[in-house]
Amino acid sequence: MAAFVIDGKVIAAKVRADVAADVARLKEQHGFVPGLAVVLVGEDPASKVYVRNKAQQTVECGMQSFEFKLAEDTPEEEVLELVRKLNADPAVNGILVQMPLPKHMDSNKVLELIDPLKDVDGFHPMNVGRLSIGERALAPCTPVGSVILARSFKDDLSGLNAVVVGRSNIVGKPMAQLLLRENCTVTIAHSRTKDLPDVVREADLVVAAIGKPEFVKGGWIKPGAIVIDVGINRVLKEDGKGKIVGDVEYAAAAQVAGAITPVPGGVGPMTIACLLKNTVEAALMQRGLMRA
Amino acid sequence: MAAFVIDGKVIAAKVRADVAADVARLKEQHGFVPGLAVVLVGEDPASKVYVRNKAQQTVECGMQSFEFKLAEDTPEEEVLELVRKLNADPAVNGILVQMPLPKHMDSNKVLELIDPLKDVDGFHPMNVGRLSIGERALAPCTPVGSVILARSFKDDLSGLNAVVVGRSNIVGKPMAQLLLRENCTVTIAHSRTKDLPDVVREADLVVAAIGKPEFVKGGWIKPGAIVIDVGINRVLKEDGKGKIVGDVEYAAAAQVAGAITPVPGGVGPMTIACLLKNTVEAALMQRGLMRA
Ligand SMILES: NC(=O)c1ccc[n+]([C@@H]2O[C@H](COP(=O)([O-])OP(=O)(O)OC[C@H]3O[C@@H](n4cnc5c(N)ncnc54)[C@H](OP(=O)(O)O)[C@@H]3O)[C@@H](O)[C@H]2O)c1
Ligand SMILES: NC(=O)c1ccc[n+]([C@@H]2O[C@H](COP(=O)([O-])OP(=O)(O)OC[C@H]3O[C@@H](n4cnc5c(N)ncnc54)[C@H](OP(=O)(O)O)[C@@H]3O)[C@@H](O)[C@H]2O)c1
Repeated sequence: MAAFVIDGKVIAAKVRADVAADVARLKEQHGFVPGLAVVLVGEDPASKVYVRNKAQQTVECGMQSFEFKLAEDTPEEEVLELVRKLNADPAVNGILVQMPLPKHMDSNKVLELIDPLKDVDGFHPMNVGRLSIGERALAPCTPVGSVILARSFKDDLSGLNAVVVGRSNIVGKPMAQLLLRENCTVTIAHSRTKDLPDVVREADLVVAAIGKPEFVKGGWIKPGAIVIDVGINRVLKEDGKGKIVGDVEYAAAAQVAGAITPVPGGVGPMTIACLLKNTVEAALMQRGLMRA
Repeated sequence: MAAFVIDGKVIAAKVRADVAADVARLKEQHGFVPGLAVVLVGEDPASKVYVRNKAQQTVECGMQSFEFKLAEDTPEEEVLELVRKLNADPAVNGILVQMPLPKHMDSNKVLELIDPLKDVDGFHPMNVGRLSIGERALAPCTPVGSVILARSFKDDLSGLNAVVVGRSNIVGKPMAQLLLRENCTVTIAHSRTKDLPDVVREADLVVAAIGKPEFVKGGWIKPGAIVIDVGINRVLKEDGKGKIVGDVEYAAAAQVAGAITPVPGGVGPMTIACLLKNTVEAALMQRGLMRA
């Protein structure tokens, strides 16, 4: 039987609609509009597209968007000064510094200067720590979106054997923390893992965040498993044109899995939606409010 | 064949000897002596014993020990004020507030006030986050000691299937992070895990941190596995006297394991030794020095 295909576009639209409703409520009940500041340094074409999409969706949800575009050769101190200003600005609830930064900058220094309460990317060590400890925290957007997708198919993930392939700071590790919070038994695999196929075969829930096209084979998937494919890889088709594929061998995996996210149209659309969700959450935290 | 018994007392003594050598070197080359401040609030008998042992071993390693004993009914603000003073005191490189604190205090508030660079328990969210991200961090003492014990038997843990049973903030979760840093494939199991025996059977390295006497059975252990037993449980013997046992069914597990830590005399002695090690590390970090 073919797997249920988890539609990231539809679910992301739902997340954005919830954000818009939250924003409307905050405006009505508390008289303020959350704001997201995005800082882009340099001319990286992919980054420019991301930043444009973020700004557009921020506005569509009824929030304020502040864009800061700085030249490639901006001195680090100027970026730090901008972050300090945004930290102090009450109209700004979320601050996102688009990565990668130019090579002459110390990315960690910039990221760690962001007020953890405004760190909507969830990369600040303080948020990473709070997430791990189980305190209220801003968690990285892509893993947050991945959990929402998995739960859209099976609301209670408790007790599932989850295998996360990849241990990056932006996807794999926070993904593992979030799945632990969902009461999964969590395994983190990576390039040093022995017998990866055997490890994946045990999984009721597989998250692939490797960055290698169709690396996880269909034959590794346990029948009925939930497969969340975070990978975004550009490959050449036979006709010489480019296309995007995930980290999972989709066609084969979709024959065995219980549910699977396609690429594109799966995890991808969730990231910005969850950034907007984090911006609302940041605004709530800053004002000591709970989610409705 | 019976397992190799990992002798925590001997290895802890070695860690302390290394600390003493580091302290002597710091004194000679940099003209300063690291200092550890321990704050005890109230009269908990177990806590009093811990604090006394910590102070004694601190001095034995050549470091300065500062003890602060406050009455059970000390107002929270007084403890916070003490922490602020210790944060500012250059003679104090490490600060440990003995848990549990009296019920009228917010433990998190106290712990998060400690300067992360002096947080030798490694419980501050900033250290938890830095450990996860892979930055230089002070990591919790018991898991650090557990890794040293495992590596005393097998120096390179890379590629091992490690299963950590327990996900507390002071043992299970940091243990998982440290084993991931050692390039193990790491599984975290807990009370919601299904088929725990089967999960443990896959493990080349098992860490039990559950708090239930002899909960992990000998029959669950993969032949040749390394077993690190963090549990400390007081039980009654048949003759009505008390004794201490671990979270692993020791006698049976020792028949199958490749190596095992006894209880007592395994992980237990490592915790304070690693606290002293962390105090030296904290002093080095505060002065921007690397370990020799
Ligand atoms: N949908 C989205 O919005 C979104 C967001 C972020 C990323 N992504 C995509 O997700 C993928 C992963 O991104 P990332 O930033 O996490 O990548 P990354 O930082 O390069 O990390 C890749 C991870 O995969 C592991 N790995 C590499 N080769 C492996 C192998 N042969 N077997 C097992 N594990 C292996 C690596 O292990 P080691 O640690 O041992 O090297 C590493 O932990 C990429 O395709 C990226 O484009 C998508
Ligand atoms: N050697 C030392 O210096 C040292 C230091 C610290 C602790 N310890 C000892 O280590 C043990 C654990 O301490 P802790 O502070 O981590 O304990 P804890 O905070 O009580 O955590 C216990 C963990 O075990 C899990 N657990 C409970 N029942 C289980 C079951 N039936 N199956 C699987 N997992 C189960 C719990 O899962 P849930 O999260 O799902 O509830 C929890 O994550 C205790 O015996 C303690 O005395 C020793």
